Amino acid sequence: MGALEKLKKRYRWISSFSSALELLHWDMEVNMPPKGGKWRAKVIGTISEFVQRELTSDEMGKLLAEAERDAKGELDEALVRVAKRDYERSKKIPPELWGRFAEETAKAQRIWEEAKEKNDFSLFAPQLKVVIEIVKEMAERIGYEKSPYDALLDFFEPGLTVEDLEEIIPPLRDFLKRALRKIEAVEKPKDVFKGGPFEIEKQKELSLKVLKVMGYDLEAGRLDRSAHPFTITITHGDVRVTTRYDESDLKYSFFSTVHEGGHALYEQGIPEEMRGLPIGDGASMGIHESQSRFWENIVARSLPFWEFFKTTLSEVFPQFESVSAEDLWRSSNIVERSLIRTEADEVTYNLHIMLRYEIEKELIEGNMKVEEIPDVWKEKMEEYLGVIPKEDRDGALQDIHWAHGTFGYFPSYMMGNLYAAQLYSAMKRDLDFDSLVREGKFDKVLNWLREKVHRYGRTLEPKELLRKASGEDFKVDHFMDYIREKYSKVYGVSL
Amino acid sequence: MGALEKLKKRYRWISSFSSALELLHWDMEVNMPPKGGKWRAKVIGTISEFVQRELTSDEMGKLLAEAERDAKGELDEALVRVAKRDYERSKKIPPELWGRFAEETAKAQRIWEEAKEKNDFSLFAPQLKVVIEIVKEMAERIGYEKSPYDALLDFFEPGLTVEDLEEIIPPLRDFLKRALRKIEAVEKPKDVFKGGPFEIEKQKELSLKVLKVMGYDLEAGRLDRSAHPFTITITHGDVRVTTRYDESDLKYSFFSTVHEGGHALYEQGIPEEMRGLPIGDGASMGIHESQSRFWENIVARSLPFWEFFKTTLSEVFPQFESVSAEDLWRSSNIVERSLIRTEADEVTYNLHIMLRYEIEKELIEGNMKVEEIPDVWKEKMEEYLGVIPKEDRDGALQDIHWAHGTFGYFPSYMMGNLYAAQLYSAMKRDLDFDSLVREGKFDKVLNWLREKVHRYGRTLEPKELLRKASGEDFKVDHFMDYIREKYSKVYGVSL
Repeated sequence: MGALEKLKKRYRWISSFSSALELLHWDMEVNMPPKGGKWRAKVIGTISEFVQRELTSDEMGKLLAEAERDAKGELDEALVRVAKRDYERSKKIPPELWGRFAEETAKAQRIWEEAKEKNDFSLFAPQLKVVIEIVKEMAERIGYEKSPYDALLDFFEPGLTVEDLEEIIPPLRDFLKRALRKIEAVEKPKDVFKGGPFEIEKQKELSLKVLKVMGYDLEAGRLDRSAHPFTITITHGDVRVTTRYDESDLKYSFFSTVHEGGHALYEQGIPEEMRGLPIGDGASMGIHESQSRFWENIVARSLPFWEFFKTTLSEVFPQFESVSAEDLWRSSNIVERSLIRTEADEVTYNLHIMLRYEIEKELIEGNMKVEEIPDVWKEKMEEYLGVIPKEDRDGALQDIHWAHGTFGYFPSYMMGNLYAAQLYSAMKRDLDFDSLVREGKFDKVLNWLREKVHRYGRTLEPKELLRKASGEDFKVDHFMDYIREKYSKVYGVSL
Repeated sequence: MGALEKLKKRYRWISSFSSALELLHWDMEVNMPPKGGKWRAKVIGTISEFVQRELTSDEMGKLLAEAERDAKGELDEALVRVAKRDYERSKKIPPELWGRFAEETAKAQRIWEEAKEKNDFSLFAPQLKVVIEIVKEMAERIGYEKSPYDALLDFFEPGLTVEDLEEIIPPLRDFLKRALRKIEAVEKPKDVFKGGPFEIEKQKELSLKVLKVMGYDLEAGRLDRSAHPFTITITHGDVRVTTRYDESDLKYSFFSTVHEGGHALYEQGIPEEMRGLPIGDGASMGIHESQSRFWENIVARSLPFWEFFKTTLSEVFPQFESVSAEDLWRSSNIVERSLIRTEADEVTYNLHIMLRYEIEKELIEGNMKVEEIPDVWKEKMEEYLGVIPKEDRDGALQDIHWAHGTFGYFPSYMMGNLYAAQLYSAMKRDLDFDSLVREGKFDKVLNWLREKVHRYGRTLEPKELLRKASGEDFKVDHFMDYIREKYSKVYGVSL
């Protein structure tokens, strides 16, 4: 067996343990009885540490060095490049620290849940501090040029830096705040998705139907309910999504499902031969988010989509028979100043992200104390969105990310929105998007994404992938153009 | 850290991987989408092999030898004794043989499924031969005094031998055959549990209610649906049961649920400090089965139980309002000559086991050819049960055990029935069983089992545990007395 084959075999061996970890996480969110939590954290901690140790073993280093000499062809060269990059970064973090990270974040999640339930940030603060100290130590060990936050960004969006964000954010923020003011001046459409009661079983049926039309393979996946929707790949052939339900608001489940469906289509599109290897993954969190956002916002919040899907919706919920596609479309695109990120519309969403980015950057750079978060949160909410949360559960406790220890992740959501718009602009050059969606020919849309994005797995860096897929370098303008064009139509104002 | 502490730490570390395996298995039965199967098998294979290798490493041998010198006190001495026994037995089987066993039994399961589907034992025979040869080699390597079958029995029921069984079986067989003839002479009660349709959601509700009254902690467990009911412990605080449903037969789910609930109560009763160690388990398969059988047969098929539970049953299924507790009790205890072990009643169940035991013992001792199984099966069915399966799927292909390679397991089912009756006889000396059950005071019953059985985990050998719990050596008479007393009442005949 050549060195390269040995390397692949080794990675695939380790990936069995990673698969087990994914299932342990999925199960924790979907099925685990409460009293299993304490031991589950230990199990996850132990196996995470083991995986990390195996990935960063000296033997792996040797295999990598040997394989580097053998690697020929695009795929194998990419494999060695990506693997080496991961190896070198991981090598900087000792297994003991990874283990501590896994255990403390598992603990933090439980505490966060309780704190959110009790609506009291101070219950979460002490454990959040523990997590932040671990994350800061990780950043220091990984190293950075300008900000420790860069070291974290690089985990989720390779190549993205604070410097990039400081360039992207100001014009975007100003544009969005301006657009928001103009839209607000017009009368808000009535939300036809509110009311109900929409039976949960029926909502699940609708969720399954939309996943199916999008092209999600339910023989290789499943849909469950969890507090916070997510997508997870257990193994090839087993990519699961979760959603949430609100009996009085159909949008709440519907767009969450489509969003996770977008992530899942990406995962289902990664070639089997890449699986179990470091390249058998999405290119980055931002690119991943571009896929979920593409389906959620660009597809499912479009007029052609509702012209197509109205029939299916009415089959499941007959009360929509008398509602027009236009009204469904307008209701899908209500813009408002709101408190909750995951329910925010396309115009305000990135403002929620900017706030989080600024807070977590300050925390990681050591310029802010954990105790200050709730107040800073309120100040920034007022400044960016003009609304102030009265309760912690609608403010600093609303997202699970910090409990997960995933500092540096939030900007990926914004980048995903921006990438999605750039991909959309490119797709329209190749396809008659509106007609295809109106006719429910989602396979054409999916195939374009498979061809331009999915099939590469992690073999290309985000910036390179975007360039190859869209034919140009990353530009924030595509997103602003998209918002301008779409919302001018929805609201009849000039943005 | 002393050697003993090191040993415990090591076992607990390995137990995290075993926990992951348990979850992978549970999920495979309950949730996994079909296309995940191929990769899931690889994940399970990889982690199983890893766990086996860790448990039998030379390092573990060294730790054990050192710990043996340190061990003081009942618990630690038991730990070292049990651990050493497991280690030495596993060590006798080379990893290559374990690997072959895993591979050939995985193959055998697929072939068995196909053969059962096609109803043709001859399709299964060649692979069954392969499995038997491997199992025989294992028995030879483990070693035995009189029969190679003893080496296999010892896996599941430590201390039980062919000699014991040859003493237990003949009087029991004669008694059961005689009882069956006498019961048959009387008119069979009408089965009030048949009919329906019993809505699955309602059956689930009833299952949850009975688990709750038994004392199963649903905060530390959950109930799901699977093709074959089972109980599985993921970690301490996470003991799950599954059941099955038939819309036209309420008994089908109800007694399966109670049976698994009995297993689960045992698992939930094993002390937390034993968990992750070789002693943190049931004492044996037979003792485990005694717990499931106790709840299924002795509790839930008793008249006092239905006097208590009738109200709950009628709340969920109002059609039972007009049915008397006596009729529910009689319907729970219908005795008949049937072909399928898993659906057999208390009187005939052990006859099904004897037949299997006799066949597998002859196979392992080399006195019977695989090709002869279907005919011998039919002969013995006629002799013991007076019915002959027309088809292999109702005969020699009905159970998966031989495809799993678990020869020597079947007698545990019988021993479980016998142990349960002996525990019942002892319990009645301490408690007013009938009154407690009639009043739904199952906590008293459960506490007795916790005190006498559960809390010992695997620190005592089955024979010793039974002696301690019941105050006497194992005796088959308790079971015969129990059957005699109960079925004389149900059928109004003298047995």
